[in-house]
Amino acid sequence: MSQPQTAITPRRAEDFPEWYQQVVRAADLAENSDVRGCMVIKPWGYGIWENMQRVLDGMFKATGHKNAYFPLFIPLSYLAKEAEHVEGFAKECAVVTHHRLEGDGQGGLRPAPGAKLTEPLVVRPTSETIIGATYAKWVQSYRDLPILINQWANVVRWEMRPRVFLRTAEFLWQEGHTAHETESEARAETEQMLRVYETFARDYLAIPVFVGEKSEAERFPGAVQTLCIEAMVQDRKAIQAGTSHFLGQNFAKASGIEFLSRNNTREHAWTTSWGVSTRLIGTLIMAHGDDDGIILPPRVAPAHVVIMPVIPKPEARVAVMEAVEKLAAALRAQSFAGEPIRVEVDARDIGGGAKSWEWVKKGVPVRVEIGPRDLEKGSVAVARRDRGVKEKEFLATDVFVSGAGAMLESIQQVLLERATALRDAHTVEINSREEFYAFFTPKNAERPEVHGGFALVHWNGSREVEEKIKEDLKVTIRCIPHVEGSGPGICPFTGEPSTRRVVFAKSY
Amino acid sequence: MSQPQTAITPRRAEDFPEWYQQVVRAADLAENSDVRGCMVIKPWGYGIWENMQRVLDGMFKATGHKNAYFPLFIPLSYLAKEAEHVEGFAKECAVVTHHRLEGDGQGGLRPAPGAKLTEPLVVRPTSETIIGATYAKWVQSYRDLPILINQWANVVRWEMRPRVFLRTAEFLWQEGHTAHETESEARAETEQMLRVYETFARDYLAIPVFVGEKSEAERFPGAVQTLCIEAMVQDRKAIQAGTSHFLGQNFAKASGIEFLSRNNTREHAWTTSWGVSTRLIGTLIMAHGDDDGIILPPRVAPAHVVIMPVIPKPEARVAVMEAVEKLAAALRAQSFAGEPIRVEVDARDIGGGAKSWEWVKKGVPVRVEIGPRDLEKGSVAVARRDRGVKEKEFLATDVFVSGAGAMLESIQQVLLERATALRDAHTVEINSREEFYAFFTPKNAERPEVHGGFALVHWNGSREVEEKIKEDLKVTIRCIPHVEGSGPGICPFTGEPSTRRVVFAKSY
Repeated sequence: MSQPQTAITPRRAEDFPEWYQQVVRAADLAENSDVRGCMVIKPWGYGIWENMQRVLDGMFKATGHKNAYFPLFIPLSYLAKEAEHVEGFAKECAVVTHHRLEGDGQGGLRPAPGAKLTEPLVVRPTSETIIGATYAKWVQSYRDLPILINQWANVVRWEMRPRVFLRTAEFLWQEGHTAHETESEARAETEQMLRVYETFARDYLAIPVFVGEKSEAERFPGAVQTLCIEAMVQDRKAIQAGTSHFLGQNFAKASGIEFLSRNNTREHAWTTSWGVSTRLIGTLIMAHGDDDGIILPPRVAPAHVVIMPVIPKPEARVAVMEAVEKLAAALRAQSFAGEPIRVEVDARDIGGGAKSWEWVKKGVPVRVEIGPRDLEKGSVAVARRDRGVKEKEFLATDVFVSGAGAMLESIQQVLLERATALRDAHTVEINSREEFYAFFTPKNAERPEVHGGFALVHWNGSREVEEKIKEDLKVTIRCIPHVEGSGPGICPFTGEPSTRRVVFAKSY
Repeated sequence: MSQPQTAITPRRAEDFPEWYQQVVRAADLAENSDVRGCMVIKPWGYGIWENMQRVLDGMFKATGHKNAYFPLFIPLSYLAKEAEHVEGFAKECAVVTHHRLEGDGQGGLRPAPGAKLTEPLVVRPTSETIIGATYAKWVQSYRDLPILINQWANVVRWEMRPRVFLRTAEFLWQEGHTAHETESEARAETEQMLRVYETFARDYLAIPVFVGEKSEAERFPGAVQTLCIEAMVQDRKAIQAGTSHFLGQNFAKASGIEFLSRNNTREHAWTTSWGVSTRLIGTLIMAHGDDDGIILPPRVAPAHVVIMPVIPKPEARVAVMEAVEKLAAALRAQSFAGEPIRVEVDARDIGGGAKSWEWVKKGVPVRVEIGPRDLEKGSVAVARRDRGVKEKEFLATDVFVSGAGAMLESIQQVLLERATALRDAHTVEINSREEFYAFFTPKNAERPEVHGGFALVHWNGSREVEEKIKEDLKVTIRCIPHVEGSGPGICPFTGEPSTRRVVFAKSY
């Protein structure tokens, strides 16, 4: 059967991982640098990140947090303080050992042997330890609590198999770090930030997520409880898109965050940490892209509308460009989601077909063409990225302008509905071990290359069961849902009682 | 003679460097971390940086730039490519040599000997080399030019004598990196960004700056021309507050940024780079602070107005807090410099005097107190940070609210006028060598601890003269002014002709 030609080769159904790499390249989002595992985030990709940052930053501030900045480097001895934490991170860190370079006598450079650091420094893989040491100095009394701080930063975790956005040695993220007087306050904070992430994913990224708790095996090293949001992407795998950790008093004890309580006793603070990263961009691509490239949810798209002048003859240029600038100004005066509509004018002197395909691949929500004939009719040719590439609507210019905000809102909704339909279609309650193994064994699924999706299954809480399943199928518990889920039942792997169904899936 | 008591000890006139450290501490802006030379930027200090970032980012975008992100790490061999550049930076870099840690058998950690990197990585001291290598891949033809990109990032330059904000091992900055088809375009860009910095310093930081060119001795390593803005602070020293470099084809040749020109020849691109950093916060403090702490220009202050409820008796609390919240809402509905007025309510249960002094030291532009008596009168007690600490105005609440934007604008203007007066009072044309040496020799100035200021002096362009002066007086050429300055004259150090006066000063 012949397939219609698509902008991205291979198509999703042919080779999803390779499709992903090609979409990143075709949309000009990012590329690998010459430094192993470190990416260059190009302007179109960084524009998405800036929008994510702006929205999240507003949500953090609305919940009482302020931003601050802590050192990039962590003394080696700090990492060794929290035993579980060090076990979880120590293996994959960039280590600074020298503070000066010198000529190597052959025109090159080398670390100066005389400038070896007494104590090596680790480039932060996450900042609990260095921030904990700082909070220990800030907190004397219960009056100094809570501390509600967020940091926007780069972090480094050496990765053996990097994949742009999803798993890179250096990535950008935010990390919230809070310290509280009581356990219940800290638990409430952990839950609150999880809900912020859930809301952000649904309302801005158009991605419905499962929210819940990680099993002990998947928990953040050193945390008492790790809450997470888990997204399903189009190959039906899960992506952990954000986490919120209740750290109990573990890090406070390791760092010495102590305070004089209301009862005049010395207590350790209760801390939390929570973060999302540039991984969200990878999640977006895999959640919404099609065989022609990325499809950007309007609320985080760097541009909402691209206007492409059509100039068949040089003498038409002035009139067309005038109309283009007038339209751009009119659109910018409209608002969408509380902000002015973001408009790009692409007046490059290249073929209209190639130009239009570039913007399809970049996923801009709305493409508009104006040529001399449109001017005569007072109309514009409009294409929505959530519809077929050839599907154009001819709209009276004023109708288009006044309805542009609503059109963007409609695209946002369509993307959320599609992602929800995908997730619901491939989230299945499973009650037997055989059914479970079949679900996650590709040859048993209707498409040979794709496994089943998310399985909601009873589980007796045993780590051995979890490990066996991971070994057999590369399937893990993504989360123990907070709300979705079920009443009690029987664990199909052991026959033992279970309090609720958990979400099993393959994951990135 | 007895001095009135001040919030900061020592006073500026007693020990300016120590005054600076105490202001940073008293305003809760930042502190040194346990990692040598690396600072923790606390929420109040980071809030200033966020405002600077937002404004500058808007100015960069308005001049056609987009943001992107490049790797933190630079392969050692990249740094060695541009000979002058490596000479200038190689001595003070953090060097990553290992990518994994392991237990040291004694409960601690060490870099895993088996995980030594084949090529060490340098933590970026600036990104010309890594960005140049990237642009070399992006640019094929003149159609790919210009590239107009900015990056917000952290950088590391190992510093032997760190001073918070002014000179730290890690600091935050933006670095613009552009590539152009022609020399004149690149020179115009260099000049344009210098003017952006000048405007930002004057209109937002309330700091008048000298703009001009660095002498060869003070140039950025590898640049053809370094333009700069130079601010005078209250000990009459200069602070280089921002630089814009015309890099010629030097980095393009080192990195291989080549393109097919309109004439079908292969050419090297012309590049620029430009940056400002968290050093601007230190500049602000030294330019505007007084003996009671920092004074923040309203346009970059994290809060414009702090409202402090005065609650003499518990039964007054409800009414006062209601009035406070109403006032806060009314102020937030007003705008200043195109943004809503930023209001903090400080309802902490501590003494009113201590509370008010905290905000004086933090430099918030306007302090407001409301107590039961103010409620009765429908008035508020208002204090401006640019006036004496005890100077309060009692204003009808509605008059204060409707005039708040104008009051903030007035404070902004007062700060600029004061800084301008200071600069003008201590910028002197000097025509003889003796006068010059006297000007920069503290015992000859009216205050024994302070040298003269900025000297506008003719100079024959000789590097030897420059070096001798630096050696004798620790005075350098801060800039060769672009506009300010003069016609030709005679260099007092050599008797040779000079084309214009240059700015000599001591500097940070």
